[in-house]
Amino acid sequence: MAKFSKNSLNGKSYRIPDVLDDSVALEDFISQHPSKKIVVVQGLGFVGAVMALVCANAFTEEYAVIGIDLPNENSYWKIRSINDGVFPLVAEDPNIAHLFEQARSRGNFLATYDEVAYKYADVVIVDINLDVQKSTDANDVLSDFSVDLSSFKSAIKSIGSNCREDALILVETTVPPGTCKKIVQPIIEAEFTKRGLSLRKYKLGHSYERVMPGPDYISSIRNFPRVYSGINDLSADAVELFLHTIIDTSRCNLTRLSNTNATEIAKVLENSYRATNIAFVVEWSRFAEEAGVDLYSIVNAIRDRPTHANLMFPGIGVGGYCLTKDPLLASWARKSLFGAKSGLAMSVNGVLVNDQMPKYAYQFLQRVTYELNTKRVSLLGVSYRGDVGDTRFSPVQKLFELLSAAGVKMTLHDPYVSFWEECEQKIYSDIDAVLKDNPDIVIISAGHSIYKQECTINKILKIKPAVIYDTLGLLTDDQIELLMSKHSVYVLGRGDLDNDN
Amino acid sequence: MAKFSKNSLNGKSYRIPDVLDDSVALEDFISQHPSKKIVVVQGLGFVGAVMALVCANAFTEEYAVIGIDLPNENSYWKIRSINDGVFPLVAEDPNIAHLFEQARSRGNFLATYDEVAYKYADVVIVDINLDVQKSTDANDVLSDFSVDLSSFKSAIKSIGSNCREDALILVETTVPPGTCKKIVQPIIEAEFTKRGLSLRKYKLGHSYERVMPGPDYISSIRNFPRVYSGINDLSADAVELFLHTIIDTSRCNLTRLSNTNATEIAKVLENSYRATNIAFVVEWSRFAEEAGVDLYSIVNAIRDRPTHANLMFPGIGVGGYCLTKDPLLASWARKSLFGAKSGLAMSVNGVLVNDQMPKYAYQFLQRVTYELNTKRVSLLGVSYRGDVGDTRFSPVQKLFELLSAAGVKMTLHDPYVSFWEECEQKIYSDIDAVLKDNPDIVIISAGHSIYKQECTINKILKIKPAVIYDTLGLLTDDQIELLMSKHSVYVLGRGDLDNDN
Repeated sequence: MAKFSKNSLNGKSYRIPDVLDDSVALEDFISQHPSKKIVVVQGLGFVGAVMALVCANAFTEEYAVIGIDLPNENSYWKIRSINDGVFPLVAEDPNIAHLFEQARSRGNFLATYDEVAYKYADVVIVDINLDVQKSTDANDVLSDFSVDLSSFKSAIKSIGSNCREDALILVETTVPPGTCKKIVQPIIEAEFTKRGLSLRKYKLGHSYERVMPGPDYISSIRNFPRVYSGINDLSADAVELFLHTIIDTSRCNLTRLSNTNATEIAKVLENSYRATNIAFVVEWSRFAEEAGVDLYSIVNAIRDRPTHANLMFPGIGVGGYCLTKDPLLASWARKSLFGAKSGLAMSVNGVLVNDQMPKYAYQFLQRVTYELNTKRVSLLGVSYRGDVGDTRFSPVQKLFELLSAAGVKMTLHDPYVSFWEECEQKIYSDIDAVLKDNPDIVIISAGHSIYKQECTINKILKIKPAVIYDTLGLLTDDQIELLMSKHSVYVLGRGDLDNDN
Repeated sequence: MAKFSKNSLNGKSYRIPDVLDDSVALEDFISQHPSKKIVVVQGLGFVGAVMALVCANAFTEEYAVIGIDLPNENSYWKIRSINDGVFPLVAEDPNIAHLFEQARSRGNFLATYDEVAYKYADVVIVDINLDVQKSTDANDVLSDFSVDLSSFKSAIKSIGSNCREDALILVETTVPPGTCKKIVQPIIEAEFTKRGLSLRKYKLGHSYERVMPGPDYISSIRNFPRVYSGINDLSADAVELFLHTIIDTSRCNLTRLSNTNATEIAKVLENSYRATNIAFVVEWSRFAEEAGVDLYSIVNAIRDRPTHANLMFPGIGVGGYCLTKDPLLASWARKSLFGAKSGLAMSVNGVLVNDQMPKYAYQFLQRVTYELNTKRVSLLGVSYRGDVGDTRFSPVQKLFELLSAAGVKMTLHDPYVSFWEECEQKIYSDIDAVLKDNPDIVIISAGHSIYKQECTINKILKIKPAVIYDTLGLLTDDQIELLMSKHSVYVLGRGDLDNDN
């Protein structure tokens, strides 16, 4: 039976070919770039697709770039979309469109599903996902988690069974520490041994990306410091040379660490630091509410000290692909790949605390409203980051689900998201559309700057008296005062100012 | 029976007077400064003694300053010592001696034990200690803690029963959040009511110090941003005016928060952030050892990101007066003063983890040496901070106790400490003295820069083969290699480089 892959951005459907052979297109592409080095980027998601663009627009070398992904329902459309001239991501960064246009005009960027592509590669960059499966208990609290490496392993195997014996394989995926040495290297070497290839010429390195979708998407690759390593000096040198061609090293440091375990730990430690710091401040935000003080002004006062500038704000929750799982990847690796008896309790606890955050917002609404289930709610913002249209693991989803389960009717607004895939919801981009029916509760649930603008405040002032819940401390004192002239206003992490505690 | 108070710095003993009346000296001092405002600093410890100096050398006003402490064994000698012209602290900061000389030559600094001093005060600054009592379980893990406010309350009462009805009372002590409103204000008002004074004229504020003993002791008061508040606008304005006279506000911000709960929370949140971040990195340092990588180079690589610049190093433990107790003060206050069901679990856990750190170093030595109890150990450094002679709650104490209990013979070195009060130990300042008998184990236990110097490394190279344990990642790669030519070298948080994990 024919299978299709649907473009989640515009709904266009592509039939997945029955015979999976893209060799003619590949040979044609290669023949057009006889003197260029070939970079194959494995995975065309939020990192890989953009990394491919950056490689196709390298600073000091002109690469021919092949993006590869799987010919399945989720991914095949991305391959076709790229080759059709439509970049498979909606991005606020205008550089994405610009670099894509540049690559198209040069003709040095092709997408394919055919593993035969690896045989042409001077450099293979691994940018596939590696997920964590979480389980929760009856109270919806993180109780266990596991990592399934099978699809990661098969992706690595597809490289090893096709690539040249002198290729550079550069892993950018966030992996459980130990993966390059204990998983990738053995698979590559087993495949090479089967194929009768030398094990001395290939290069294997790790250098984690710090990609941040949003207005500085491209810059978060090109103009950002990098940490890298290799399984040996040959590999580390090759990674360094390659990174120099795509990163503005006049502005950002390249830091070499002694082995791949070290860079793999660096990545997950980096994200665990953020996740744990958010969890840390969460319990202080509860205390601030009890003590009738404003945690945001406290945090700002403390950040004045350079040693405390990284202190975080609380909020409705932690979202995105990294902070919600990287501490777990690390803890899993410590036990499963290094045989330690204990994982990383504090970092795991950070995820556990953060995963509970949206529930707190829900319970708060239950406390301050009468018969929440009968209320009509407008949710302002479904993305997990301000001014970015990225709903992956958005904490707003949990709040949406809790409100839905309680029978609450909702209208949803987000200027950057038109359809909320994870919740299968239409999202309005016009704020009037979600306010016109006079909601009982308006929740500011994402940090988009439009919600701080005077025009939005004025619109909220025009609706019938309602509960306004700012879950991110976005409103200023003046705006709160203005809104309180008509509405009941609550700010997460900010105690009642009339509270005489 | 006569009581004495011994100067812990030079052993000089002072007899505590039987009749406690210092009114003549006070009247004499006041009459010498008829037109000056009077500042009384309550508590002559690490903060109060130096705060008094800063006030006696204020930038824009000449105050007459009275330091007051209790006429007991621990404190009476400080009063006498100040009046005898010997500052009661050994400090690396030459500005301390300089400001003390200036104050003496102007004659605007007197110390006393007599509470009558408060009646002269325009400003009373509260700089007394407020301790936490910790309990541990059979495994020496923090199991409970409590706060005893009785001596704090009686200190506040002594102010309220003596001070003028228009005085400014400025609390600098780190207190459980809620203390100014729920403890200090009621005591002052009860005393004023007894005395028939108006309750409208006094000013009560809170502004926490960020004093850092060491080479920048004075600067950590004068040139450091300040957060402050008052119980009302009158109070907050008075605090602001006063702070302007002693702090270089052209270089550092004064940040006003809305009430005293907010600044009290800010202080303990600030320190809890540091304590929790150290605890966070501790478990990663264990993982780093297991994975055969160097956590220090990883942390440095990550700190390259401005958003991660506050990431901490691990080490032998967390010491000092603040980080070891402030998270507990906060958690206690949340439950005891605000009636919350939960404390601040993550912050308390940070203290619990940090308190265990020295034991890890001890257990590590047990693993890597044969019959540890028969070994002779040289401990390099007993202070809790590098290049500072401050042994308050030093983590080295725990390591010392564990080694002592095991029967290990130790010699101790520290360039900044001559006698270790807490452990009643003589400390050598000459490193040759602790190395000359060829110890079996040399532990670098404080981050003094002398231990990184070539001359020290050369001295360690001359002793018989030994175990060298760097508990702070102080040694460079080259130094480690050099030392490994003769010794077995271990670095806490740094895995064995030969480890093929």
